[in-house]
Amino acid sequence: MSVSSRSSKPAVDVVIVGSIGIDTVETPHARRESVLGGSASYACAAASFFSRVGMVGVVGTDFPKAYHNLYKKFGVNTEGLQVVPGQTFRWSGVYEANMDNRRTLSTELNVFASFSPKLPESYRAAPYLFLANISPSLQMHVLDQMKRPRFVLLDTMDLWINTARDALRDVIRRVDMVTMNEFEARHFTGRHNLISAARQLLELGPKYVCIKKGEHGSLLFTRDSISLLPAFLIENVQDPTGAGDTFAGGFIGSLAKGGAINRKAIVRAMLYGSVAASFGVEDFSLDRLAKLKRAQLNQRVRQFQRMLAG
Amino acid sequence: MSVSSRSSKPAVDVVIVGSIGIDTVETPHARRESVLGGSASYACAAASFFSRVGMVGVVGTDFPKAYHNLYKKFGVNTEGLQVVPGQTFRWSGVYEANMDNRRTLSTELNVFASFSPKLPESYRAAPYLFLANISPSLQMHVLDQMKRPRFVLLDTMDLWINTARDALRDVIRRVDMVTMNEFEARHFTGRHNLISAARQLLELGPKYVCIKKGEHGSLLFTRDSISLLPAFLIENVQDPTGAGDTFAGGFIGSLAKGGAINRKAIVRAMLYGSVAASFGVEDFSLDRLAKLKRAQLNQRVRQFQRMLAG
Repeated sequence: MSVSSRSSKPAVDVVIVGSIGIDTVETPHARRESVLGGSASYACAAASFFSRVGMVGVVGTDFPKAYHNLYKKFGVNTEGLQVVPGQTFRWSGVYEANMDNRRTLSTELNVFASFSPKLPESYRAAPYLFLANISPSLQMHVLDQMKRPRFVLLDTMDLWINTARDALRDVIRRVDMVTMNEFEARHFTGRHNLISAARQLLELGPKYVCIKKGEHGSLLFTRDSISLLPAFLIENVQDPTGAGDTFAGGFIGSLAKGGAINRKAIVRAMLYGSVAASFGVEDFSLDRLAKLKRAQLNQRVRQFQRMLAG
Repeated sequence: MSVSSRSSKPAVDVVIVGSIGIDTVETPHARRESVLGGSASYACAAASFFSRVGMVGVVGTDFPKAYHNLYKKFGVNTEGLQVVPGQTFRWSGVYEANMDNRRTLSTELNVFASFSPKLPESYRAAPYLFLANISPSLQMHVLDQMKRPRFVLLDTMDLWINTARDALRDVIRRVDMVTMNEFEARHFTGRHNLISAARQLLELGPKYVCIKKGEHGSLLFTRDSISLLPAFLIENVQDPTGAGDTFAGGFIGSLAKGGAINRKAIVRAMLYGSVAASFGVEDFSLDRLAKLKRAQLNQRVRQFQRMLAG
């Protein structure tokens, strides 16, 4: 590493590492085969509405050119996206009636099995890092390659709580903010009450804990405060896949754009994340986000603020 | 009815009709036998923190003197409470782990089977009426005895949706506001999405529809607006019985106190209702409300407002 590269201005504001997958999704209304998915896909797309985003992930040589182009269309920097021989990660799942629950039908790790993320030099000094849902050891590996990021957010899922709890705890100790859904927070902490669960997460080190409740909104906890944010209410939910990733991506992107890091700024960024997620679920995959105009997003933010003001 | 009584100033601001029962409640933590319950008990107690409340209901001669005294302690006017020969209404139920679900074990209508509410003259000109959970025909009978109340709120439950749907629809047509929990709203309208469900309820006539989501907060719908209110988050839930009645009682009591009737005033009153309910569930029966000081309630309202402000 040369001195000049070390001090160069980063090419991106937000680095996001996570999964990239080809999903097959069935809801009570429809079924979509082999569509773009993965936590990094949703998060990068949402964050790209607000900030310069660099993606870290891996796909196989089978990964469709159309999806590479879609990332470009969102303006996502894909210098950190590795293309390696083999098949892209695949996931399939089915939503039950009313989409309250989903079952995973199959998971094929494929190229993810041997993935070792290597951050492009142009990413390393980025001030914001989102460790989206991926194995804790990969999250740690990415974190280790960053040069003192200003703010690090971590998301996870049940799989890692079950299979890599210690590694997950180790990464949580090193981040500024953790986001989990209510079930994951209960599962990880063994506490049913969300105040108790959040307190335990805060004790590990993060300054902020955001508990996502899907259509019921989200909660932000700090050591001395609780903030309550409902979800933007929509009539037409087509596919909830990736809603949490879209929320977190919209969150980190808008937080980076705003610049401030305090409770008020974080709640405001959660509001943007909630609106991004409300669009995301209106269609399968990234279809709605791909059509979304920044003006539409801003309009819904204002509509949301009126709903919250009473 | 004399001319003078017709024009006399009402003795109460809010009339509340509903059930009064002796409950046996079992939660994962404890069991309480033969404690005071019923929608009117919870609603009157909560409303009494804000306004002069007149109760309409029926109990048997077995109804303990201590419970009569408790109503008095809350300052509830019980001129409209009939005491008739026979047993008081009884209910027993058990909450499952985490108190997300409850099962009714037994219901004995007793004196409720032949109840015909007769409003004291001093109630009839009251400006606010809350038709709490009770059969729609009794709700209608009470409504018919009122002299043009300024604002009428109606609550109900699954039982009446199943057994008296037409009668329920007829009362709904005549009220200003309906409140149901999310399951009841879906059940009554046949619509899963809450925006669609609320729209159908609004089409029946009420200007305001409030959908209660328990720990996830409440939603207010008008023909051209939606307001989203989270619930006050508490760590210690002992007994959720009557939470919806306490919410609605705190709501109508504080609405009456405020005087204005518009969306903003209604959302503000929902906030007070939510805080009242958050206290109510911290102990069994009306035990927590009986100890509650108005200053504690106000303090939690301010705490809640800070949580909402972000």
